[in-house]
Amino acid sequence: MAKKNIYLDYAATTPIEPKVLKKMLVFLKNNFGNPSSIHSFGQEAKTAIEEAREKIASSLNCSSSEVFFTGSATEANNIAILGIVRAAKRQGIKNPHIIVSQIEHHAVLEPCRQLEKEGAETTYLPVDKKGLINLSDIKKAIKKNTVLVSIMYANNEIGSIQPIGQISRLIGQAEHSIGHKIYFHTDAVQAFNYLNCDVKKLGVDLLTLSGHKIYGPKGIGALYVRQNTPLEPVIFGGGQEQGLRPGTENTASIIGFAEAVQIAAQEREKEAKKIKPLRDKLIKGLLQKIPGAKLNGPQESRLPNNVNISIPGIEGESMLISLDQEGIAASTGSACSSRSLRPSHVLLAIGLTPKQAHGSLRFSLGKYTTRQDIEKVLAVLPKIVKRLREISPFKQNN
Amino acid sequence: MAKKNIYLDYAATTPIEPKVLKKMLVFLKNNFGNPSSIHSFGQEAKTAIEEAREKIASSLNCSSSEVFFTGSATEANNIAILGIVRAAKRQGIKNPHIIVSQIEHHAVLEPCRQLEKEGAETTYLPVDKKGLINLSDIKKAIKKNTVLVSIMYANNEIGSIQPIGQISRLIGQAEHSIGHKIYFHTDAVQAFNYLNCDVKKLGVDLLTLSGHKIYGPKGIGALYVRQNTPLEPVIFGGGQEQGLRPGTENTASIIGFAEAVQIAAQEREKEAKKIKPLRDKLIKGLLQKIPGAKLNGPQESRLPNNVNISIPGIEGESMLISLDQEGIAASTGSACSSRSLRPSHVLLAIGLTPKQAHGSLRFSLGKYTTRQDIEKVLAVLPKIVKRLREISPFKQNN
Repeated sequence: MAKKNIYLDYAATTPIEPKVLKKMLVFLKNNFGNPSSIHSFGQEAKTAIEEAREKIASSLNCSSSEVFFTGSATEANNIAILGIVRAAKRQGIKNPHIIVSQIEHHAVLEPCRQLEKEGAETTYLPVDKKGLINLSDIKKAIKKNTVLVSIMYANNEIGSIQPIGQISRLIGQAEHSIGHKIYFHTDAVQAFNYLNCDVKKLGVDLLTLSGHKIYGPKGIGALYVRQNTPLEPVIFGGGQEQGLRPGTENTASIIGFAEAVQIAAQEREKEAKKIKPLRDKLIKGLLQKIPGAKLNGPQESRLPNNVNISIPGIEGESMLISLDQEGIAASTGSACSSRSLRPSHVLLAIGLTPKQAHGSLRFSLGKYTTRQDIEKVLAVLPKIVKRLREISPFKQNN
Repeated sequence: MAKKNIYLDYAATTPIEPKVLKKMLVFLKNNFGNPSSIHSFGQEAKTAIEEAREKIASSLNCSSSEVFFTGSATEANNIAILGIVRAAKRQGIKNPHIIVSQIEHHAVLEPCRQLEKEGAETTYLPVDKKGLINLSDIKKAIKKNTVLVSIMYANNEIGSIQPIGQISRLIGQAEHSIGHKIYFHTDAVQAFNYLNCDVKKLGVDLLTLSGHKIYGPKGIGALYVRQNTPLEPVIFGGGQEQGLRPGTENTASIIGFAEAVQIAAQEREKEAKKIKPLRDKLIKGLLQKIPGAKLNGPQESRLPNNVNISIPGIEGESMLISLDQEGIAASTGSACSSRSLRPSHVLLAIGLTPKQAHGSLRFSLGKYTTRQDIEKVLAVLPKIVKRLREISPFKQNN
């Protein structure tokens, strides 16, 4: 392949950082012991896992006993949500109430739907046209039986950043008036590369991280759980991870994940500074060059690597395929639902029609994105749009 | 380190086969796309995953749509057990009944305990002194409300192999008389290296596999689920694995796992033939050289790599530590509960006293075990036992 591929789907997944892979290889090749084993093979692995846990704890400003490894961020979100609400039920709250936003990831929304079958109630908070939650809506939604609020730190599709610290203070005030604890969870999977994730500053009780979104391996996630938070496990077995997530520890991926967390935290500010002008160049160029194109999501309070635009008159999928033929990888909605024909629930929540939502594209930039990559997209996409519009059955009447 | 380490804990975990790691590295380094993405990066990953699924299906003699990837065998066991029983409850069976053996892994026993809290009943079948189930006990245990039988193919501690094919025929007959389907699950994690796992011949509806027990990576497992088996998922999210196990697919580990499955299935007979004489040499030597030593588990119907002996008068853990100092890695019970002070539930089930159970050692042999390794253990362990017995507070009066 002479053609250079341009990857602009970092929000779907990231390549593993070479330094991360190097650390993993030690455990994929030599130190293979089961961390639960008493012998030296096991102890080496155990020690390395505890060092990894401390690294992550230090990035989150928490204690290492508050960091739990999981098989994915989806699993971490499930443990947080199913875990808090089922524990509340077992403690005698018959119809525990959950508050989430309408633009949460499926890994938050689907556990809520499951809990509704188990007798819980959910309030799905609307967002404004920029994808931001109105704080007074949260305040109004809190009820006597509210046990959990889960609001994502930054959205995976439109990059909107929620004021997590403000929300936690607001919840703290509400707790006083209703007289019991309301647990606050945030999915920080997309946020971690660019935003400070000090759990004390954020004021959260639970926080989800993913390996493969931060230049670490797939198949590993973590959940921060503040001490003394009652959680019912989702799976049951040999007692690993303090019984919260049993199963032989995935040593190599845990070690790699911790390295990725450390690097991301160290490089966060520098990367954000580097990437934001590229994002802005792409947004500006697309809006200028493509008639009718509109930016989805906020201009401020937006992840520095997220671009999401609606292009009237064309299916997003046709654009994706055409871009792919030019060696450019982008996405419509989130990867997890990209095979679904339903329009993005996030884009609908910010007020797009289903047709507008179907005509949207997400470019998510990353560590290896260059100015040349952006220029290539700006050279290629307007032509693609022009060509597709000429053959589109939709025309421009939406 | 001049001293050669001798690893005899293959039942706890295995090193990754170099051919497996080679396949994984392609996906850890270059092909990093999210399999749910529509672009080429994603499609490459998706195609590789479906090829991996077909490889595993072919080893199990099932259709690839019946193979589901999970984050561990613990998770696969949980999906099988929680999934069948919760689905039965949702279909209106108020107190679904489960039958398991007393010597199942914690990843089977603990989900049953959870289901009891949710209104299910469990029968824990006893085993005989060799660790084998009496078929007539299963027959007697089946009731009107029985929905699931879960019996492990081969035991991780004492290597006893259960007659899965016979059990499935027996269940088939019972289904006729009670008039509804009873699902049959087997945990084949320890069996897969040495025993045929053709799901049609075994007659099972669900079967669990683990990556890291068969020279593949940690953090990956699989569940075979026969078509049309009603299962409720354990976690909820983006719809991957037909909605049964959402979360971004762990491409590299899936690819490595499938390679490990294929190699294990191909080398199964050869490996069993090679390892059995080594096992028998170790058993014979230990029983001869250590006064009072007794073999736990059966002589026939035993995994070709499993040795488990009780040595009266000494704590297993002291022996482990002394062996470790000599560079020999073994275990008491299963790795998953090795940090627990409770005696092994498997050894208690075959009639050992708690004291006898505490004085037990497991050696599990593997692909890289040599005759010299066995000779080293036979030279070293009797001396360790002698020394420990001289200083033991227990003396030999158990």
